[in-house]
Amino acid sequence: MQTDIEIAQAAEIKPITEIASNIGLKAHEIVPYGYDKTKIALDPSVSRKKDLGKLILVTSINPTPAGEGKSTVTVGLADALQLAGRKAMIALREPSLGPVMGMKGGATGGGYAQVLPMADINLHFTGDFHALTSAHDTLAAILDNSLQQGNPLNIDPRRILWKRVLDINDRALRHVSIGMGGPTSGVPREDGFDITVASELMAILTLSTDLMDLKERIARIVVGYTYEKEPVTVKELGVAGALTVLLKDAIKPNLVQTIAHTPAIIHGGPFANIAQGTNSILATKTALQLADYAVTEAGFGADLGGEKFLDVKVPLLGKTPDTIVVVATVRALKHHGGVALADLNTENVDALATGLKNLGQHLTAMGRYGVPVVVAINRFTADTETELQTIKDYVRQFGATAYTTEVWAKGGAGAQELASAVIETVEQESDFTPLYQPEDEAVDKLNAIVQTIYGGKKIALEPKAQKQLAEFKQRGWDKLPIIMAKTQYSLSDNAKQLGAPKDFIITVREFVPKLGAGFLVAMTGNILTMPGLPKHPAAFDIDIDEHGVITGLF
Amino acid sequence: MQTDIEIAQAAEIKPITEIASNIGLKAHEIVPYGYDKTKIALDPSVSRKKDLGKLILVTSINPTPAGEGKSTVTVGLADALQLAGRKAMIALREPSLGPVMGMKGGATGGGYAQVLPMADINLHFTGDFHALTSAHDTLAAILDNSLQQGNPLNIDPRRILWKRVLDINDRALRHVSIGMGGPTSGVPREDGFDITVASELMAILTLSTDLMDLKERIARIVVGYTYEKEPVTVKELGVAGALTVLLKDAIKPNLVQTIAHTPAIIHGGPFANIAQGTNSILATKTALQLADYAVTEAGFGADLGGEKFLDVKVPLLGKTPDTIVVVATVRALKHHGGVALADLNTENVDALATGLKNLGQHLTAMGRYGVPVVVAINRFTADTETELQTIKDYVRQFGATAYTTEVWAKGGAGAQELASAVIETVEQESDFTPLYQPEDEAVDKLNAIVQTIYGGKKIALEPKAQKQLAEFKQRGWDKLPIIMAKTQYSLSDNAKQLGAPKDFIITVREFVPKLGAGFLVAMTGNILTMPGLPKHPAAFDIDIDEHGVITGLF
Repeated sequence: MQTDIEIAQAAEIKPITEIASNIGLKAHEIVPYGYDKTKIALDPSVSRKKDLGKLILVTSINPTPAGEGKSTVTVGLADALQLAGRKAMIALREPSLGPVMGMKGGATGGGYAQVLPMADINLHFTGDFHALTSAHDTLAAILDNSLQQGNPLNIDPRRILWKRVLDINDRALRHVSIGMGGPTSGVPREDGFDITVASELMAILTLSTDLMDLKERIARIVVGYTYEKEPVTVKELGVAGALTVLLKDAIKPNLVQTIAHTPAIIHGGPFANIAQGTNSILATKTALQLADYAVTEAGFGADLGGEKFLDVKVPLLGKTPDTIVVVATVRALKHHGGVALADLNTENVDALATGLKNLGQHLTAMGRYGVPVVVAINRFTADTETELQTIKDYVRQFGATAYTTEVWAKGGAGAQELASAVIETVEQESDFTPLYQPEDEAVDKLNAIVQTIYGGKKIALEPKAQKQLAEFKQRGWDKLPIIMAKTQYSLSDNAKQLGAPKDFIITVREFVPKLGAGFLVAMTGNILTMPGLPKHPAAFDIDIDEHGVITGLF
Repeated sequence: MQTDIEIAQAAEIKPITEIASNIGLKAHEIVPYGYDKTKIALDPSVSRKKDLGKLILVTSINPTPAGEGKSTVTVGLADALQLAGRKAMIALREPSLGPVMGMKGGATGGGYAQVLPMADINLHFTGDFHALTSAHDTLAAILDNSLQQGNPLNIDPRRILWKRVLDINDRALRHVSIGMGGPTSGVPREDGFDITVASELMAILTLSTDLMDLKERIARIVVGYTYEKEPVTVKELGVAGALTVLLKDAIKPNLVQTIAHTPAIIHGGPFANIAQGTNSILATKTALQLADYAVTEAGFGADLGGEKFLDVKVPLLGKTPDTIVVVATVRALKHHGGVALADLNTENVDALATGLKNLGQHLTAMGRYGVPVVVAINRFTADTETELQTIKDYVRQFGATAYTTEVWAKGGAGAQELASAVIETVEQESDFTPLYQPEDEAVDKLNAIVQTIYGGKKIALEPKAQKQLAEFKQRGWDKLPIIMAKTQYSLSDNAKQLGAPKDFIITVREFVPKLGAGFLVAMTGNILTMPGLPKHPAAFDIDIDEHGVITGLF
């Protein structure tokens, strides 16, 4: 069997100028990076188009090591819509380089449902993440320099929120002491590095509607507190302009293509377990302006990326999804039903029935927003007809229909039935109802997420989190939406609880206020904002020959 | 008076495809980044051209806060050659982003002798530095992961040479403790961050002749020692391939243009006070292959960049300079002669005569290599005719002629006399004689540099450095060339000794072996490999408006 990178390397790729021209972009509205990638200007004339396309949100059950293939289905569905003669576009997040060197597995789809140029997109792409790293760490340097140069803002070095970032999986940098080495080398203090996708600047970039919105959001970032416990912002540090300059190109959406030449915008890359987990507002909006069908994806499961898309992104996007597609696989559902990874190729309808409760909870949760929901089964070779039928029978009780897709092997041709269903479903009347209102109490917002989305019992706040909520109320920060930082592997905050746990309590140990992004992050469980490398990092297997041909990258 | 960025923004810029086509590059030999920058393929067909162009090396006296304008003269000279109907190209280093946010002053020339697009080149450009940061810190993460995962290579955490880097001026990261936070967050140890230009990978990138040479050099990097004090290499860590993949585009030279549309290759950016300080072998070679006159620059003064160009780069380049241009200004020479910065606009022939000894030492040093030397006086408004004549009279004793240039205000038209002189001089017979031979003892190499180039008395080795030399001899590393890490402000290792100090001793406190780059760095004085930010960082003044127009960047 060919690997993803071999299929990608063998695929024919069209000049990106041709792809751009096909969707109506003029030469002055694009800034090509090589022949296969381009940035799109922030104000393309097409943005004056009034009728937005239909929005299709692809999400999934809780991910498992068995693999779900959400990006692959997203790409395959758009290719199938294109195959059906519809004008479709994709909006995806950018992959993070850290995990590429750590654990095999890209974020550009797979098989014949991939976006190209696969290697470049997974490596430096158009430099957006690097620009974010630069801007983030420049701010950190400016902050520490303020401490060094007499501390005019009276910042308490023990109460700094702004850490440093690198787009690298590096556990040794999670907790560091900086400013050692004497009086000319900074003020000693505790610090730590997150992975770049966890940066508030990443969240801001993906939520900004234009360059000035970006600058204003950056100015509002709270980097820490004074000795009097008053918040200190980037505006006070005086570098909102300089950081915006560093992000002036990164804010522009990137256009590429699928193997089937369907246009794909890939932009912004926050993780859904620690941030909002969706591609940028500008990416989704541009796809809606340029195509009749914009297929987009929310990171991890519907409980994380899905909920955040609907409650945090939709209000800023000004457009609700017309259909939600929930992706599941027989393998993953059996794993949720207790089957070990080694035994997933054996038919097991009982375990499947148990695991289906995970899908059921997500269908209930997504159904609650008043948007039509369909299910895509991403078929693997070992799946039996009985198993596939079991899923199809099960989902009917949620008013949903399940469609089998085979996009890895067949590309768009493997999702024609799903595409037909989506074409019908997006025309249905939908009545979007948000989960909570901004003015709701923070605790009520949290309970709504836990009870309605996760199927749990309630929220519990540790003393620090309680104290913070009281403080936020005083500062007027409690009207912001909530971003749950939670494991992606379970509906609960315990990664080991697969399937559909009941009666669980989600414990918030602390909140992280992100005033620039405009949300409060609720930290649950032992969620990490800097991953580590495994014993055998993927980097060991990556190589390049004298002709520049890469091997071992997925 | 207009600022540099205002002049750059008002300048007409030609499509880079046109510039590339003019110098014979075919469409498949370039990879454009936007409309004004392009990468050049590693094997352009033009590389088959046998007759290389003439090589002109621009260097200078020891820099002062008064400003010398070496890059400005480099750009102006090439523009003047072009104006004289000659096929000229420029090869420059890439600017580092760290200083851009710290101290005002770009590295793209000034006034009407600039390379474009000025803002982009000074910001992220084509991402080369970001790729280097990624590759460098990926290696650091892999190394720390090896410690974490049972330390199979038996690395002594107290003897690790490989630090981390960021392209940011951040003094608080010079000395750090990492791996804090318990058993899952790495092995605690001392570490530190350098600025990206100080990375051995930067030195390697600029010295590599092709992709496989890059990979082999990376494999040879010594990252530290085992508990048995045996060197540990990247090859043993198993990531030479992955790091090369991260640098596959960064190794390709970047093509841009001057305001006068002279083609300019800008590639690689090591600092000359801590590394070899010149643009890449591939950049210079490509310019030599594509043009009849390749004008290139060595960082800081002739004592640092100049010497390293001639003794480290030339053997790998396989081409010696046909003329060396030493840049000086009346202002800087007066400062070397003891005049305070505030008084530089007043005529002072006596101080000038004293300061001229600095220029004299550099002319002696450069003259020693057997290559014709000319002097370029970069004229400032307040310079008097008497002062200019004083310089011209002085340099005759060294067999050199000095030419006044006014390139900031007039571009190439301000360097026509210099260009004519260079056109004549490059045709003179030259008889290049290197300063030392590889097989010379390290101490003899060091003494040759101190005595012949700096005009000092001799080298002194601190006990650690002595011990290291004995160790290197055993390992066979003592045949490598030497890179002096020394202040750029003085011929000696004391930044405050201006002019031409005599009888000084240069003390080497330690050596840093760079086996991948293929040289030994001799650390003298208190040279820093991570700069700090000033009280009022340049970032405070940088801004961008809703139309994307940048202000305050120089």
